[in-house]
Formats: sequence, C-alpha cells, structure tokens
Amino acid sequence: MRTWPTLLALLIYTTPLTASQAAGPSPPDAAIEAARAYRKAHAAEILAEYARFLEIPNVARDLPNIERNAKVLVEGLRERGIAAELWRMEGVPPIVYGRKDVPGATRTLGIYLHYDGQPVDEDAWHSDPWTPTLRTGALEAGGTVRPLPTAGEPIDPEWRLYARAAGDDKIPWAALTTALDALEEAAIAVTSNLVFFFEGEEEAGSPHLESYMRAHRDALDVDVWLICDGPIHQSRQPQLVFGVRGVAGLEITTYGATRYLHSGHYGNWAPNPGLLLAQLLASMKDADGDVVIDGFYDSTTPMNDTERQAVAAIPDIDGALREELGLVRSDGRNAPLAERLRRPSLNIRGMVSGAVGEAARNVIPNEATASLDVRMVRGNDPEAMLDTVEAHIVRQGFHIVREAPDRATRLAHPRIARVRREPGYPAAGADLNDPQVQPVIGAARRAAGDDLILLPTLGGSLPLYLFGEVLDAPVVIVPIANHDNNQHAPDENIRIGNLWYGIELMASLLTMGMDESGP
Amino acid sequence: MRTWPTLLALLIYTTPLTASQAAGPSPPDAAIEAARAYRKAHAAEILAEYARFLEIPNVARDLPNIERNAKVLVEGLRERGIAAELWRMEGVPPIVYGRKDVPGATRTLGIYLHYDGQPVDEDAWHSDPWTPTLRTGALEAGGTVRPLPTAGEPIDPEWRLYARAAGDDKIPWAALTTALDALEEAAIAVTSNLVFFFEGEEEAGSPHLESYMRAHRDALDVDVWLICDGPIHQSRQPQLVFGVRGVAGLEITTYGATRYLHSGHYGNWAPNPGLLLAQLLASMKDADGDVVIDGFYDSTTPMNDTERQAVAAIPDIDGALREELGLVRSDGRNAPLAERLRRPSLNIRGMVSGAVGEAARNVIPNEATASLDVRMVRGNDPEAMLDTVEAHIVRQGFHIVREAPDRATRLAHPRIARVRREPGYPAAGADLNDPQVQPVIGAARRAAGDDLILLPTLGGSLPLYLFGEVLDAPVVIVPIANHDNNQHAPDENIRIGNLWYGIELMASLLTMGMDESGP
Repeated sequence: MRTWPTLLALLIYTTPLTASQAAGPSPPDAAIEAARAYRKAHAAEILAEYARFLEIPNVARDLPNIERNAKVLVEGLRERGIAAELWRMEGVPPIVYGRKDVPGATRTLGIYLHYDGQPVDEDAWHSDPWTPTLRTGALEAGGTVRPLPTAGEPIDPEWRLYARAAGDDKIPWAALTTALDALEEAAIAVTSNLVFFFEGEEEAGSPHLESYMRAHRDALDVDVWLICDGPIHQSRQPQLVFGVRGVAGLEITTYGATRYLHSGHYGNWAPNPGLLLAQLLASMKDADGDVVIDGFYDSTTPMNDTERQAVAAIPDIDGALREELGLVRSDGRNAPLAERLRRPSLNIRGMVSGAVGEAARNVIPNEATASLDVRMVRGNDPEAMLDTVEAHIVRQGFHIVREAPDRATRLAHPRIARVRREPGYPAAGADLNDPQVQPVIGAARRAAGDDLILLPTLGGSLPLYLFGEVLDAPVVIVPIANHDNNQHAPDENIRIGNLWYGIELMASLLTMGMDESGP
Repeated sequence: MRTWPTLLALLIYTTPLTASQAAGPSPPDAAIEAARAYRKAHAAEILAEYARFLEIPNVARDLPNIERNAKVLVEGLRERGIAAELWRMEGVPPIVYGRKDVPGATRTLGIYLHYDGQPVDEDAWHSDPWTPTLRTGALEAGGTVRPLPTAGEPIDPEWRLYARAAGDDKIPWAALTTALDALEEAAIAVTSNLVFFFEGEEEAGSPHLESYMRAHRDALDVDVWLICDGPIHQSRQPQLVFGVRGVAGLEITTYGATRYLHSGHYGNWAPNPGLLLAQLLASMKDADGDVVIDGFYDSTTPMNDTERQAVAAIPDIDGALREELGLVRSDGRNAPLAERLRRPSLNIRGMVSGAVGEAARNVIPNEATASLDVRMVRGNDPEAMLDTVEAHIVRQGFHIVREAPDRATRLAHPRIARVRREPGYPAAGADLNDPQVQPVIGAARRAAGDDLILLPTLGGSLPLYLFGEVLDAPVVIVPIANHDNNQHAPDENIRIGNLWYGIELMASLLTMGMDESGP
C-alpha cells in the first residue's frame, strides 16, 4: 500500500497554488503579479495583523467580543476608502456593510464572509484558541511552535497559524484587504462596483440573515455574489463551488427512572436510558452508515449530466483521505466522497449519559441524550426531513415530548423521547452555465491554474438559499482555507500558503473583465 | 391507579422502625430502652457530631482527607476505651482496626464498615456534597433546608441529612458509637468480644482488602461478621441480608477518523464512532433489558428452596417502586425485583461521544466510549463473565485492543474497540441456617419487630467473598440507611428515623445472648 507521505508529496508537487504556471502576462495577470510582489514585501506584517485579528474571540453569542470584531472590519474598510457601516438588530451580532462605487463599472460584485466562529472546547486544544500560534507544519505531522516571522525572514508556505476562525472564516478578510492594498500600491483599478456583506452569526445558524437581507434589499442589489468560506479540495487543488448542503438539527433524550439509581440494587430491573438511546440510534442506520429510516432519501433530486461530468473530473482522493484519517473503510462501502455528499446525511454529533473513565460511577443514569445533525441536498425540505426522523422514533415505540416529561407522562408511556428540533435551512445550488459566473471562473483559473476544480456542491452548509430567494442573484463559493484546517474542531488552523493563494485570487477577482471565459 | 403517597403512608404506618411492638421487657430489651432514652436526651448533639464527620471529604483517592476520616475513627474508638490502631500499606487508605475484650464472653463479633464514599459530580447536587444540609423531608417530596436542631428541639424522623456518604457508609459509625455511649451510661455490659474493621477504599473496588486481611488474619479471628452497609428494604421494612452480587467493569471505546471532522464535508462518508458504539451496545440486550450475549447467563446457580421461600415472603413493592421512580414498566416484563437481582446484569453506567446541548458542534467525533458494569450472582466468575462480553464484541466484527490504536492498527481493521477491564470480584452468600447467625437474627428482630425481612441477596456488591475465603467466617449484612438514600448518586442522604433505628439495632446486637433464636 502506498504510504500517505508519498501521496502527499505527489499532491504538493502537482498542485500549483499560485498562478506561476499561467499563460504570459495580460492586464489581469498584472494584478496577480502586483499582489505577489506586495505580499513578499509585507509578509511578516500581513501575518502579524492577521494574528491580532484572530486574538479577538468571535463566538456569536459573545456579543461584546463580536462587537470588537465588527469594529476591526468597519475600520479596515474605511481605512481603504470604502464607505462602511454597521447594520443592527437588537441583541444580535451586527452586519458589517461596505460599498465602493467604481467609475465606469457595469457590474456589482458582492463579497460575503462571516466573522463569527464555532464555539471552542478549550481543553481539547493544544494551544489556546484565542492565542494565535504559529507552527512549522501541521500538528499531526510534528509541526512545532515558532514565533511569528520578523520582517524579511523567509516564510515556509507549509507553516500553519493555529487559532479559532483561522480558516473558518476570517481568512478571506486577510486575503481581501491585502489584495486591495496591493492594487492600491500598484495603482491597478478595481473593475467592479463592490458590495461587502459580513455576517456575525453564521456558526449559530444565521438566524437573522434573512431579516437583514429583507430590510436592506436595495443595498444588496448585486450581479453575482462571491461567498468567501469553506476549504479548498482535499487534493489541495483550488476549487470553486456552486452549491451547499442544507442543515438542521435534532436532540433526542431518553428516560429511565426519575433519578440516578444504584446499579446493584436496581440493575436488571430499572430500564437503562443509555440502552434505549443506543437501540434507537442503532435502528436509524445500517452497518454501511446508510440511513434506514423510511422515506429519508425519497425527496432527493438526482444529479443532472452537468453535475455528473463535473464530479467525474474531480481527482480521486478517497483512498489517500482514508489513509490520512486512519480509516480502512468509508461509509457506503467506499463509495466516492463527492457522490456521498450529494445524499442527505444523519450524523451523531454527540451522545451523553452518565459518565465514563475516572468519573464513571456504578449507577443507572436517569437520562441519555444524543445530538444529531441532518445535512440536506437539493429536493430535501428541512422540516420534512426532521419529520421522517420523528416518525421513525414513533415507530420504535417512543412517545415524543418537547419538554422533560412529568410524572403522569412517565407513568403513561414505557418509552419516552424528548425531541428538540433545531431550525435549519435547505440546500442551494447555482447553474455552472450562468453568464454572471463565467468571469468568476476565468479569474479564479488565472490565479489557481488549470487544476481549478469546479465542484457542484460542498458537503458543508451555508444559508446560500437566501441569496437566491431574497436577493435573486447567483452565488459562487470561493474557498481559500486548506482542507485540513480543522474547522469546527479543536486546533483549527490556516496553512500560510493558502493565505498567499487567497491574496492572488482576490486580486484577480477584483480586476476581472466583463468577458472572461467560463468552464 | 393507587397513588404513591397513599401507598407510602400505608408502608409507613405498617412499618415498625423501632422495637415498640416487641414483647415485654427482657434483659436485651433493656439495652434497646437505654439506647432510645439516651438518643432522646442527646439527639441534637448526635446529629451535630454526625454532620461534622460528614464534612470531611472521603473519596478513596483523596488520601489527605481519607487520613482525616481515619483519625476521627481511631480517636472515636479510643475515647470509648477500645484499643485502636491504623494498619497501613504504602499510598493507599489505611484500615482502622479496634478490639475490645469482654470478660467472660465466648463469642467474638466482627463489625465491618467502610469510611470512603463514591466520587461526586458537584454540579448535579442541590447542596454541596461536603456541607451536610438538613431538610424537612426528601428533596423530591419538597423537603426544605432547615438548621440542625438545638438541644431539646423536637425532631421529625422524616427529616433528612444530605451529604456524600450520609447513607453509604458513615451511618453505622454514628449508630455504633451512640449505642456504645448509651450502654456505657446505663451500665449495660456488651456480651461479645468486639473486633472493629473499617475499610477506606470500598467504593474504589477494595483493591487491598485481601492483602490487609491476609497480613492480619490472626487479629481478624471472629465468629460472625456484621457487615454494616447498604439500605433497608424498599418497603421501608428493616432487613438482614445474607448475600451480595459480585461486580466487575468494562470500558469500551470505538473509533472513527483520527480527528474530529466537519459533519458537512465528511458526513455520510466518514464512519461515526457513536453509531458504531450504539449498534454494539444495542446488540447486547433486548427490548426487555435482558442480555442476549451468548453464554452470559449459563454459569448462574439457580435459587434453592430456602432462598425461594425467603424471596416469596418479601413484600411486593415493585408496583409502588415503579410509581415512585416514574416507571410504567420494569425490565424483564415486570418480573419481581428480588428475582431480577438473582441474575447477572450488564448496565451502561456511562456513554460519551462529542457533546450535546449548548456544546454540540457539527462534527463527526473521533471516538465514543461506554462504561459498563457487570453484576454477578453465585456461579458467575468475573473474568469469565467479561470474557463472554468480549467474545460478543469480536462476533460483532470488532478487533479488540487494550490501548488507543496506532495508525497501522486503524488501517488494518474496519472496526476497532478498545476494551479496558476493571478488576472485580464474585458474588458471596451465607447460609440462613448457620448457628452463628441465629443470635444476630434474634437481636435484629427485637430491634426491628416482626416485619424484619431476611433477604438472600442484596443487589449491590461488597467484597464479602473475602470474609469467607480468607477469614473463614459467616457474614450477615446489617443495613441501616433508607432505601432512597441516593447512594452512589447526587443528593445522597440519610433519613433521621433510620439513624434512630440503627442506634437501637446496634444496642441490641452488642448485648445479644448466645442462645438467641433464628428465623
């Protein structure tokens, strides 16, 4: 079996992350060259400024710190001559909005990013999530901590900066502002009117995005949106993505006795809620990881031919990915990842009853809880998908409640499940042949080279359906972060080479013409 | 359906917890009367002293506090004219040993208790586990906090004192010392030589009890042991118990990828360790809570006729117990508790993967762990029982490892379970017709009245097999605590009336003759 380091090396050397292999100079390439020269001259300063931004905690419910983040963005836009303001709703993170009108421009380009990050489980991190920590490589590969570089010091693109939100989703801000500064210094003009729309509660499920959009629809009238989020392809090849999965959540709690019981005095007599939960969860999926709930897959829209071709052109990295992740087998009997992502999923993101390890005690716990997320593809309605799961729970003999059951309820039903539904949103997708997205594909190809992947759908979720439904404009997802950035998990990081790529990509997108070619 | 308060009232009024209904005065009854008079005169003082003892944390691995507990016991024995000492082994809780020789006594009575308690999950307690808190009744019944009584203040036996170890297992110490003081004041002689043997790591599985016993066998030469531990019967009727279940433990960890993964980008492709664990646990038991692992029940010794008769005489409290605990059904299709306890059990005491509630994140966790305990009855060997569970895990397609798997192991096996076995011990039992236990039964009946239950086996576990194997003496378990004392769980407590009963029981046992009658 081929070892991962060999494969990894292969991927690195065959993966142009800059435009170095692109064709001879042309007006847009001047922008990329300017961006590269500027980055080389200011590399230490760019990293230091990004590290300062990452120091500000950005969990959506931590409003005082969210405000500090928003202030950095507003001031950063204003310093660059862009009219900027905060849109507010009571008690929720503000939208950072900016606008730059370019004389003679006939297109308005929307740039979306989210400045909030996932909550952190600090104990599981190797360094403090809010103390950006530079390492000489990925932690798993033995990368060691080193100081931020001083001015002029050589910088290895394989270095990684560890911090919450380093990859998801503050990195577009660092790339965007550096590209703007480089173009300014080189006196290269931006070719589109620009609308900046930065959200502060994406990781909390974007509960107010729609309200903000509807309240400010006129200010958000753009021709094409760049959704700056997500990782590049696992092959380390850059990509553009034309869709996302939807997401919803579900928490299930099963019940034993009204209190913890001694497992000796009652074990074998009092029902165990952990067993009830295990049996319920086990009934939902088969040994291959496929969902066996009636109707779960029925509403899914199958792939069309264009999607099928795009998927077929994606490098096959499944074997290498399994090896990297220590897996001898993936779900669905090793079916390709890109194909699996076009199906809805049901994932156990957490499961807790009593305690394990040192804290374990000889008790029968009084309840057991599992937290699930459902990812959806085109055709799946969030509420209808949660309904199929609930119907399954009922078919397993459970009485469903919304709050902890009272005594009368307990004494009326042998099996009770408290089910809490989390609001979600559907999948969204854009047509690869839309005329507004052709210049974006062309500009990205100049920065990324011919290995640019066009991915019909991302596995992850973003509330992109709103851009179509409310704002009536096509969206293209423009990822910058490395695929192994540990987003949503401990030890989140950004590979420095990916930031360098992002700067050139942004410079190319900001200067793209009206007649660029598409796929 | 009859409501629990009605049944409870019935149980209270039909349950003599003192010897008030016993036959006319006799020499031993004088001891009970003396104990009661002394308790009435000193009630506030007795409770205050017990509360001070409960303030000292007593988790076995917390050696500095364990020493403070042992000191209280040694000094308490010495103050009462009993020669006392600490037996030590390096780095483990000491044994508190005491000896009182009585002129003319022809029997030596051994008194065992354990002064360590279960670990605490402080967040789950309603009051600090190490700040004894008196309530006017059980918390679930609306008992409210009140100060300890002042001298002479009337005391309701339904009051409860909340603290870790209040019921399990410091209460025999309060009962024993008060009984000794009462007999001393009334100048009533103890009738047996006494050996005191107090253990400090029972809740940690008594890992050094056997070594201590073997090292000091001569000092532990007694005719009958009183094992002072456990709760009285759930009917609130007092009981003596002639056996215990054995116990062993098992921790199972299943694995997904080497790290947390984003549930969008990999959900439906990367195996979920929580699902693997749920499917494995679900395969171990059926919907009635019975174990379906091959061979799990095969080694069990069936009940003999004496046991069967004793079990048949036990009040049927199952329906009331289910109602109290909010259960409409108990495992084994409502088979009687006493019968269920005579079978081995497999209990999920804990289950953890990722996080639930506020802390839930959209990830595929990298592992899932369940902690199980196995309770055993006569015939079951601990290692052999764990072997049947492991063989089942292998039959479910898992490769078993003892430490976290390395990459090569992960890449060789699609399903991996790390199994950690916890040392355990077998069940033990005593013959109800043993001549040495007859006086104990007689003395307990005088203190408890005719409702005294003789229970062949407790559901819980104590390392009683050692008393038979190493010390070659019969044992009788002498419970004092209320059945709903929440032992091993948050909000552990002792009902004050049970302490009053314990004092009279101890006075009666300390003064029993040689020719008392048995069952």
